[in-house]
Formats: sequence, C-alpha cells, structure tokens
Amino acid sequence: MRRWNGWGDEQFSLELPAQGQGFLSERIGASQPLSEATLESVCAKVPDSRLPADATVDALIDTTPDTRVRYSRGQSLDDWLAMRSGEFKVFPDGVARPESSLDVQKLLQYAQANKIDVIPYGGGTSVAGHINPLAGDKPVLTVDMGRMNRLMDLDRESQIATFGAGTPGPLVESQLRAHGYTLGHFPQSFELSTVGGWVATRSSGQQSLRYGRIEQLFAGARVETLKGTLDIPSIPASSAGPDIREMILGSEGRVGLITEVKVRVSRLAEQESFHVVFFPDWDKARTACRKLVQNRTQLSMLRLSNAIETETQLALAGHPHLIGVMEKVLSLRGAAEGKCMMTFGLTGSKHQCASAKQEAKRICSEYKGVYTGTRLGKKWSEKRFTMPYLREALWQLGYAVDTLETATDWENVDSLLGLMENSLRTSLQSREESKNERAHVFTHLSHFYGQGCSIYTTYVFRVADSYDETLARWKHLKNTTSELIVRNRGTISHQHGVGKDHAPFLPIEKGELGMLAIRSLCTTFDPEGMLNPKTLIE
Amino acid sequence: MRRWNGWGDEQFSLELPAQGQGFLSERIGASQPLSEATLESVCAKVPDSRLPADATVDALIDTTPDTRVRYSRGQSLDDWLAMRSGEFKVFPDGVARPESSLDVQKLLQYAQANKIDVIPYGGGTSVAGHINPLAGDKPVLTVDMGRMNRLMDLDRESQIATFGAGTPGPLVESQLRAHGYTLGHFPQSFELSTVGGWVATRSSGQQSLRYGRIEQLFAGARVETLKGTLDIPSIPASSAGPDIREMILGSEGRVGLITEVKVRVSRLAEQESFHVVFFPDWDKARTACRKLVQNRTQLSMLRLSNAIETETQLALAGHPHLIGVMEKVLSLRGAAEGKCMMTFGLTGSKHQCASAKQEAKRICSEYKGVYTGTRLGKKWSEKRFTMPYLREALWQLGYAVDTLETATDWENVDSLLGLMENSLRTSLQSREESKNERAHVFTHLSHFYGQGCSIYTTYVFRVADSYDETLARWKHLKNTTSELIVRNRGTISHQHGVGKDHAPFLPIEKGELGMLAIRSLCTTFDPEGMLNPKTLIE
Repeated sequence: MRRWNGWGDEQFSLELPAQGQGFLSERIGASQPLSEATLESVCAKVPDSRLPADATVDALIDTTPDTRVRYSRGQSLDDWLAMRSGEFKVFPDGVARPESSLDVQKLLQYAQANKIDVIPYGGGTSVAGHINPLAGDKPVLTVDMGRMNRLMDLDRESQIATFGAGTPGPLVESQLRAHGYTLGHFPQSFELSTVGGWVATRSSGQQSLRYGRIEQLFAGARVETLKGTLDIPSIPASSAGPDIREMILGSEGRVGLITEVKVRVSRLAEQESFHVVFFPDWDKARTACRKLVQNRTQLSMLRLSNAIETETQLALAGHPHLIGVMEKVLSLRGAAEGKCMMTFGLTGSKHQCASAKQEAKRICSEYKGVYTGTRLGKKWSEKRFTMPYLREALWQLGYAVDTLETATDWENVDSLLGLMENSLRTSLQSREESKNERAHVFTHLSHFYGQGCSIYTTYVFRVADSYDETLARWKHLKNTTSELIVRNRGTISHQHGVGKDHAPFLPIEKGELGMLAIRSLCTTFDPEGMLNPKTLIE
Repeated sequence: MRRWNGWGDEQFSLELPAQGQGFLSERIGASQPLSEATLESVCAKVPDSRLPADATVDALIDTTPDTRVRYSRGQSLDDWLAMRSGEFKVFPDGVARPESSLDVQKLLQYAQANKIDVIPYGGGTSVAGHINPLAGDKPVLTVDMGRMNRLMDLDRESQIATFGAGTPGPLVESQLRAHGYTLGHFPQSFELSTVGGWVATRSSGQQSLRYGRIEQLFAGARVETLKGTLDIPSIPASSAGPDIREMILGSEGRVGLITEVKVRVSRLAEQESFHVVFFPDWDKARTACRKLVQNRTQLSMLRLSNAIETETQLALAGHPHLIGVMEKVLSLRGAAEGKCMMTFGLTGSKHQCASAKQEAKRICSEYKGVYTGTRLGKKWSEKRFTMPYLREALWQLGYAVDTLETATDWENVDSLLGLMENSLRTSLQSREESKNERAHVFTHLSHFYGQGCSIYTTYVFRVADSYDETLARWKHLKNTTSELIVRNRGTISHQHGVGKDHAPFLPIEKGELGMLAIRSLCTTFDPEGMLNPKTLIE
C-alpha cells in the first residue's frame, strides 16, 4: 500500500550504507530524527465534510477521514513536515473518483452549482504544492483521475496512443509494451505520476534527449472545462494560429480537467544501454556535454554530476572497496580529486547506437573523459526510480533533503549554478536560529538542449529540534534561492511545475504582460477561479 | 527591384521548357494569358491618404501611391489576380518603416490615438491574405519591419542569435554564416520572408527534419503591444506554466508587433548533400518515408512526390534526352510507370552523414527504392528557392497555379490526399461556367513527423477569359477543398498560416472552445481589434 506520509510503497525501503551516514555526519554533523504523528491521530483531526449531498455524484465521492488525509498533501518538503508532524492544517472535504469524462462533467456541474473549489489529482507527486487544499469558506473537492487509467486506443501507423488521464507511468509503459511500443517518458516520479499530470505540469523525463519532453509527446486531449468540453485534435504540426495544446500544457488544472490524453509513442528500440565517463574537472565535463548536444549526437539521455555530487554518489553507493579500486584506476588516467561523472544513454537501432557511441566516445576523449563502460550505467538504470526512497532513509537519520531545479542558457549555467549552490550552502547561517547549520549541496545537469540545460541541485540539512524551526529553515533556503534563480535568467522550474510554492516567483520570470496572458487564459475558462485556486497564479 | 505585381526580383525569370508547355496543354488544354494593368494605371487609382499628420511619426511614414500599391497585396492567387488586373480595391493609407522598437511604440501610440488599424508587414510573401488592408471607415497603416534587419547579438556558447524582426532569409543566413553559424530555416519564400514573419505565422523550412520548425528555433522575443512591451526571455525549456512563446507563434499580428527575435542557431555543418531515390509505387514510397522518420534516421530533409508530381517534374525539367535515358534505367530496375521520386538530405558531421546514409539506403531498399545518387538532389538544392518564379512563366502562358497544404496523421494521409486531389481535379466541372475545365493536380509530402506528415498539393488550371471568372474558379477550388481538409482531420495550414483566406475554416479545426482561447488572447492585448483585423479570426 502507498505510504500515507511519504514516498511510494510502504513495503519498499532503501538503506543508507554506513559510510554514507559517516560522510554526511562529517560534512553537516550528526542528527536526530523528529518524532512522527500516527495516521490515526491525524484522522482524528479531520473535520466534517462540508460537501452538500447530491444524488448525481454522491456515489463518486469518498468523504472518509482516512481518504481525505491521504489526498491532502504532495511530496514537497513542506508536505513532508506536515505529514510527519501531523499538522496538516487543511483537508479536502472529499475525494471524487470519476470513471469517465461524463463523470467529470457531472462533478464540475455539481461543483459549480454548489460553489465548491475543485483540485484535479493525478499521482499526488507534486513537489510544489499543486494539490494542496487551502483554508477558506468554500468546500474543496479533490478529483482523483486514477480510475481513468486505460490505454483507450493505439494507432500503430501514426504511433498515437490515447490514455485515460489518470494512467500512471508503469501502466502507461506496460500497456504499450504489450504491443511493442513505448512512450519513453521517465520522470523520477514515474512510479506514481500520471500522463494527465505530466501534461498539466509540463513534465520532462530522463530520456528526453531521444523522446522529447511531454510538450513533444503530447498530441491531443479531451479537457472538461466549466465552459464545456475542449477537444484538441491530434495533428502532427500546424501553422494555424496559436497552439491550443500549448495552453493546456502547464495549465495546472486552472483551465479544466484533462480526462484523455493522446501521446506520440515509439516502437520499442532494438537496443538500450547506459555508459559512464569520468572527466578530470567540471569545465571539461560541462563543455563535453554541450558539444555532444550541439553536435546532435543521438543520445537518449545525458546526465552530468558536479564534483561534489560525484563524490557524494560514490560515498553513498556502498561497496567502498570496489569504488576505491575504481578511483585509483581513474586517478591514474587523470580523473582524480574534482572528477565529474557523466552518464549517457544510447537507445535505438543497433546501427544508431554503435554510431552514436563512437561519436560520443570521440567527443568525450577530446575533453579527457575516461570511459568506464556500462557497469555504473546499469546500476543507474536499475535504481533510477528508487531514488525518492532515499529521502525516507535520510529522514530517519534526522536529515531533510530537498531539490531546486531550473534551466538556463549555456552561457549562464556556471554563474547560476554557483549562485544557487552558494545560496543554499550559506543561507542558514544568516538566520540567528540556524547560524551554526550547514547544508550539504550538490548538483547535476540532467536535461540538455543546444541552447542550455537544466540545473538540478540537491541540498541536505539537519532537521531542527522542532517541526516549526525545520520548516522555517526550509522556507528560508527555498525562497532565497528561488528568487535568485528568477532574477538571474533561470526558469522557476524546468520539470516540477509552478504549483503554489513557485507561484510568487512566476511574475518575475514571465513579466507583467506574460502574466496578463496566462491570467486571461485561466479566467476565460474559469471566471470565478474555482479550479485549483492559487496554483500557478497567486 | 522587386516585382510590383508578382514574385521576386524583376531581373530574374524562369522559362518553361517547350515540352513542359506541351505536357500541360495535353492535360488541360492550351491557354491564353489575360491582359495586365500597368503600375502607372494602378497608382492613378490610389485615393488620398486618410492618415492624420503627427510630428512624432510623420518622418517614418510614406504615403506615396507607388509605395501604397506595393504594400497592398501578398502572393495568394487572389492577390495575383488583383495585381494583374489592376483591381486592387483597397490600399493602405500609408506605409511606416520603423528603425527601432521605440519607433514601433510611437507608431502604436499614434494609431491608438487616431483610431488607425495597423498591419504588420514582413516580407509580404503571405499566400493567405495576411497583409491585405480591408475596406472600411478607419485609416490603415502598414508597418514594414524591413529596416530592422540586423543581427543584434550572437551568443556563441548558447547558440542564440538576436535579429531585428524584419531580417529576411538571405540576411539571416549571410550574417550568421560570417560567424560560422546557420539558422537552417528555409521556407520556399526564403528569399523575401522575414524572421518575424516566420514566427508570426508558424513557418516551416525545407530542412525542418534537422533544424525543426520555427516553433523549435524561436527562443524569445520583444513584442510591442498596445499594453506595453512584452519581453519573452530565452530559456532552453521550462515547466513554468503555459509558454508565452507559443502564444506569439501564429499570432499573425493580432497580439502585437514582434520587433526582435531570438533564435536557436547551429554551427555550419561539416557536410551537406541531397540524394534521390525512385520507388516503384506510392505505397512503398510512402511507407519508406514513414519508416525513415519513425526510425529517427538523422536526415535533414525529406520530400516525396507522388506519381503525377514525379511525372510533371521530369517533364518540366528540360533535358528530355537525359531524362529519357534515366527513365529507361529506372524501368529496368523496377521503377517504371507510377514511380515516385523521393529526395532526402544529409546534413551534419561526416560521421553522422555516412551513418545516416547507410541506414537510409537500407530502409529504402527494403521498399524497392532505386538509389540514384546526388545528381538530381543537387539540382533540387540549386533551384529550391526559384520555384516561385515558375508561377510567372506559367502565368504568361495563361495558366494559374496555386497550392493547398495541410498535415495529418499517417493513418489519414492517403485518404485525405485522395480527397484533396479529387476535389481539385473535379470541382471546376461542377460549375456551369467552367464545366469543361480540368485542373492538373499533383502532390508531395514535404515535412515528416513520427505521427504524420504534411501534404502539399499543387493545382494548375487555365485562366478564364476574364479576371472575375478566373477568380471565381479559384475561389471555388480553394474553398471547397479547404473545407474538405478541416472536415477530414487535416489542419487548415501546415506552413502558410491562417491569414484572412483560411480564417473561415479555423473554427472547424479548433472548435468553439479553441477559438474562445485564441480570441481571448487577442482581445486581452487588443480589446478594440485594431491590429491586423479579420486576420486569423474572422
């Protein structure tokens, strides 16, 4: 069963190897976990539902406290602290589970007639507060799309698959693989997040170099709005005016509820492999990545860890003896202290993979990269979706983990990365209450474009002796660094969306007229602002 | 100097080889050209300008009749008939030539204060009535962006170039090539069309397989609107809400005037070549194209002519003896009557070109394609931008030529192509006045996606003995077939935009709520509808 107060399946957990714990303790000090609330105690706090009875929808709506607790929060650190402390503050008044677009229409009519706010819910994996209900006078209905999880149609010739919007990653892939196809969209939240959620938040997957972001995969949709049904036809490309697809992408529930999604799928590739290269320093490593992508080398994924992330990953990996041997060999070949680990993926026909591998190795060696084969890459691909479980292991040791991510032009990557890491590393010390606290901060680049790349920074810090102070530390780190990002030519999010947490920073990125355009889109479809209020736009 | 009543430079013309004329005459009958109006006679009809004097902008505005004639019309067949007959009907009241964004701001303030409609003008190459002024009580000011034609900035690391929006294709490429870069955007209108026009109409270039459509090349912009300046920052990718870039792409002047454009450029490739393959029949040829693109073979362009286009092109090419020899050889190798010509481009590193060539040849040979090398491909690439001049040659022989284009999913390509060709071939006969007229109709597929492709159909018919009846014939062909396209899952335009000619068909494609979204975007920025009225939205 799904964990009620954290990530993923209760039955699965990762353990931090002993030397990993030592590594963190050395850098930011040993820590103690905070005590946790029980599900029972939280359920006891759930107030009566304010949803009025209505025969047309009652069978679809669950108002039991257990359910309302489970749908109250996402996966941001703010959410974690609320779930662990039991201080949820707000719960939705009920959770609807529609089985069809018609059910969704009924729910919207019910909500509109009774002045109920509506929150669309996919996998509940938001790390930006997308699905959190707000305190207020109006009842809140969360609409879980999870029963609409089928492959409804597969056009093999056009390679277009139609899914119910609530289909989660594993069900997307298993239903397609049965026919020999793949979507190829693998965000780290893959285990739980849904195709509708990916569209609504402009998600990006680990193999976007081959398959594209969800923007490129999204071909059409059915969206239930308060003004009626918006059908977006699937057309390969068009010059006929502004693209309606692009108005739904990133709309985060403010325009309507996506009920069906058409996506561009691919035949399963003949081959797939992941390769690891170590570079002697950051500058060479980053330049090699830029050259690879600007050269259009046919890679399916690319990821570059900076020196601290490389060191952290090797320390947390376990197998200290094996890693020690590898590091000696690397050191002899020029990748010692300060080395940076790059992972690249090859996916395609045998011919394409062989050709791209040759080109990739040539470019890497121009920048003194030491190619180490597929062993570490295989490990990465096996663990690619389990990383979120590490958060649980660290939490139990008294460490809070969060990430901040953006994308910017190549010319600005080093500067912005430096500002972000520095801000996260030093901000706690500027507060009297945490002046002796350090954060352990490391970064990778994970999505690459000719123009620039994403910057994905992880920070680990000790929980305080209270939830309130822990939350205050996190807010300080998050808000200080988020403002830095948008003031320095970064986007407030490359792959996590805006939600409520990033909404205050969006106007700095989009400007007054950009916000005017977005606000006008939302109010055109939802004049009273009853769909996911305060999400995307404050 | 630019032709005042047709395409391109007055000094350049193409001649139709003798057997080309015979070929057409055999199919649709010999014809006689219509008599043409002179520039002088048209200038004499230009009424006084209704623009009020204003010291802040007077120096920017030209109200001479000659200029107003030259900016009245684009390149649709409707425009040609107006220009050749001299029946322009409407002229703009003046043409402004701003040199900066500040000039554009002044012009907008002037227009707003004096209730003047504004038409933004790039290269004037629209084939859908984008830049035509409409009759009405309000004065009309055409704003030619042509003086804003410089490369303003080149960020080599991020491969971002900033251009004045009025920069035409040749100046885009020559300014970039001086630094070793290319944009790689080559619509057939390349000689005259501008980077701002490409963005405003969602243009697509011949090498979109490598470089992408303008949607992929467009990174950011400065847009002068009636609400102020909209700055769209350049970010490689973002999940932060709906994409403002995508609201400007295809906005066709209704949101504001694009004054600066940031585009994603590439290093000039090591190699480029164009190769021709003949297939024995359409089905094999089309399938080979689909396999090539769904296999992600790294081609830079791909074009497939159907059997009639192949036959027409070979007949119109001249060199009957050489072509005859080639056809004999092809016939021996299985590509005889009904053969279809495919051209593919390879652009990239030597390694990439060699690898892609090998893969492309293998896939083509699976479908019985006969590879003929680069000789015909070289001819194609030499003539790629001169094709519009052929219209002039045909006009002088009494033939009108026009094209209709769309894109649709693979599964629908054959069906829609058949409907389009059949409609164009038979529609004239359904009118009493043209019941004995035939059209010569042929098609190629020119832009390819995993999901589908564009369909580009050319039709040639005899001019009638009057301009009015010729126009009536064209309108009948155009409107009947356009409606067919949108009623059968095609977009009203894959690369020509909406303009005024396609506006009546857009609501069928976008649906009521799609139109609501677009209309709301336009009225948010231009509540009184003074920017390019009736374009995009009727």
